[in-house]
Amino acid sequence: MQVIIISVGDELTLGQVVDTNSAWLSARLAEMGILTRSHLTVPDDQGAIVQAVRLATELAEWVVITGGLGPTQDDLTRQALAELHGAPLVLHAPSLARIEQFFKDRGRMMTASNRQQAMAPAGAMVLDNPQGTAPGLRLAIGRALVFAMPGVPFEMKAMFEQHLAPLIAAQAGRTILTRKINTFGIGESMVGEALGDLMRRDRNPMVGTTVSAGIVSIRIRSDFPTRLQAQTELDCVVSVVKQKLGTSVFSEGEVSLAVVVGEILHARHRTVTTAESCTAGLVAAMLTEVPGSSAWFLGGWIVYANRMKTAALGVSDDLIAREGAVSEQVVRQMTEEALQRSGGDYALALTGVAGPEGGSPEKPVGTVWIGLGKHVAVTPAVAGTPAVAVTPAVAGTPAVAGQTRVVAKRFLLSGDRSMIRERAAKAALNMLRLELLEAE
Amino acid sequence: MQVIIISVGDELTLGQVVDTNSAWLSARLAEMGILTRSHLTVPDDQGAIVQAVRLATELAEWVVITGGLGPTQDDLTRQALAELHGAPLVLHAPSLARIEQFFKDRGRMMTASNRQQAMAPAGAMVLDNPQGTAPGLRLAIGRALVFAMPGVPFEMKAMFEQHLAPLIAAQAGRTILTRKINTFGIGESMVGEALGDLMRRDRNPMVGTTVSAGIVSIRIRSDFPTRLQAQTELDCVVSVVKQKLGTSVFSEGEVSLAVVVGEILHARHRTVTTAESCTAGLVAAMLTEVPGSSAWFLGGWIVYANRMKTAALGVSDDLIAREGAVSEQVVRQMTEEALQRSGGDYALALTGVAGPEGGSPEKPVGTVWIGLGKHVAVTPAVAGTPAVAVTPAVAGTPAVAGQTRVVAKRFLLSGDRSMIRERAAKAALNMLRLELLEAE
Repeated sequence: MQVIIISVGDELTLGQVVDTNSAWLSARLAEMGILTRSHLTVPDDQGAIVQAVRLATELAEWVVITGGLGPTQDDLTRQALAELHGAPLVLHAPSLARIEQFFKDRGRMMTASNRQQAMAPAGAMVLDNPQGTAPGLRLAIGRALVFAMPGVPFEMKAMFEQHLAPLIAAQAGRTILTRKINTFGIGESMVGEALGDLMRRDRNPMVGTTVSAGIVSIRIRSDFPTRLQAQTELDCVVSVVKQKLGTSVFSEGEVSLAVVVGEILHARHRTVTTAESCTAGLVAAMLTEVPGSSAWFLGGWIVYANRMKTAALGVSDDLIAREGAVSEQVVRQMTEEALQRSGGDYALALTGVAGPEGGSPEKPVGTVWIGLGKHVAVTPAVAGTPAVAVTPAVAGTPAVAGQTRVVAKRFLLSGDRSMIRERAAKAALNMLRLELLEAE
Repeated sequence: MQVIIISVGDELTLGQVVDTNSAWLSARLAEMGILTRSHLTVPDDQGAIVQAVRLATELAEWVVITGGLGPTQDDLTRQALAELHGAPLVLHAPSLARIEQFFKDRGRMMTASNRQQAMAPAGAMVLDNPQGTAPGLRLAIGRALVFAMPGVPFEMKAMFEQHLAPLIAAQAGRTILTRKINTFGIGESMVGEALGDLMRRDRNPMVGTTVSAGIVSIRIRSDFPTRLQAQTELDCVVSVVKQKLGTSVFSEGEVSLAVVVGEILHARHRTVTTAESCTAGLVAAMLTEVPGSSAWFLGGWIVYANRMKTAALGVSDDLIAREGAVSEQVVRQMTEEALQRSGGDYALALTGVAGPEGGSPEKPVGTVWIGLGKHVAVTPAVAGTPAVAVTPAVAGTPAVAGQTRVVAKRFLLSGDRSMIRERAAKAALNMLRLELLEAE
């Protein structure tokens, strides 16, 4: 089976937006053993859409269209398909009811133009949109099966998984299985050296690497006639890759560092808190992106200005004046205070120079200090150190009798402001991950 | 003149790489007054390339190809063009000399396959590649002029500027200018209704809308014989669109809500602080993504767990027990405390249900309370700083020294956890933006 993907939108042919939908769809189709024959991109013009769809239906058995299903006058995919199908647009009552409900649920006014989205070429099957107002369409044109989905990526992806993926799975003839293994803290060339011959281009399973936002991922693609064979060969390569890369590997697939950290904390009934200067909430935002994070993330302090470091978190004025805000001593005190004030089991603190301004010869842009603190249990028998009951500032927390241990580490990160912040946040999560692994 | 852009590469039709070349070329062409009729993407397959180029030459006057000019066996654009041109591939001696020099300059070994890159269809014009080893090609096929350039973006861009741009400038009899206007807080269908006839598909300048992460953008394209006329007509439509959409418009081009808010705060020497529950640092992270944000962002509190709300920020235990953490009263107290404790001029507070768990009939997933507070007159909370009376910025608000004013608003946002958080964060920034505008 061959597929042609058509993207509709002036924003694409004007170059204002890069088409990511076609790549995403092609990758998903490839995973399922289906080859994409080509991508076509056309503007919001009914004639151009008709011409592209007609051509595609002559060349491929499946045509997948994204875009042009919105409520405005420049959304013309529906009309083009009606023209090709030789059928009028008729109101699809269940879709109208769903759109009305969508607006009602959100307490928003539905406009007349949204009603337009409930129109479908007579005879077409209407695909429910679980994420938005534009339903999709499925219809036969010539000998091809044509699908139209909204251009908004998350709506399109949800609709693909719900309506198209099951159909494809039922039709595919051989099995391509892929896995993605994610590492942090090791460069792409180091990964290449470690994997050596495994990365030869003529191998099957094939192993490749890609880098994205500080994370080096190893992609493995196993392509065999039977599912059993593809799975066996894939599992074998995955286990060799993992063994070679050790604790640099933090997850598979799309599982983030935050999810991994959260899972360990959750399993051990531990909590974490943050004190951020240069990343200013990014670490906390990453952690709380994880559903259910309230079980193990307490909260934190964003101490961007120095007066917030002192007033809100109690970092010493003198220390900041003497050592500078970006220093080991300050990050240690930030970590300590976050631990004590929150009553959490772990604390992460960050202070650094994200740039573009603020660098100096001793502390260039990219310098980041990260502190990792934990409450350690103290046995009363420890000579000379009387067990001090630390009264947590947080009401309702059982008093943790014990001492704290803080490790601070200096990083010199490259990239622009945005990349330095993101890498610093991930480096902090990775420090916590490695600590949790060691504590196992 | 119309152009079709063809991208060649298995990595594109397999979805391993997103095609950015086509968008870049379309944008550059649009700037120069040339409309891109469509994009075509095909795999590294000679038959597929031949078919695509033949089709394109029948539909457009110019065909611009990127990719498939490399030294390996899967680079087949050269062969496809020779087939279409009905001419054999012959060695282009000056190109061979340049490729040899390229390797010599870099002290690298030239392989036999690189020699392949000096081959060109007999009769084609060879385009020098200032950045790499693959020369480009220019030849006539049918009535169309066909250009082939390497797929490596920086080589392609350099070749476009050197060889294609001057030709286009000489030929273009018209100018296309584009603008993008960004709105927040108004749905796409509402924008459509407000713009009405302006969005008619046969109008010039043409007006279209696109939605991305809660932001509805209005794209305007002005296409006229002279630059003066294109500019005049564009400016006219831009001003009508802005007038019709009023304060929903927050920026043009790629300027974010955070940048807009930061610019106003900076200009007025005001500061802002945050107290976040459901967004847990996202608002602060967005604000501090802006370079120089330390001039107007102080920091904030991430009070994800209820015990952090009480212990770190001083929200009343009883209030949370009585009203729930997601309530007007709690968001008001969060706002108030953030204002007082930071000494900032403005405070934003958020508490809500991001999901997927935690919803209830009265407070379904997507319910978010946002508080916006300001010092009507500022008494800095930081000890040792002399209190400075600030004249209230809002006309009609009685100036009472040390008083604060808090507005709280309830939102019901749609989407998954990640989208609800992002939209909530943007809604908070937008509330502050509107307040700053009013205070003007």
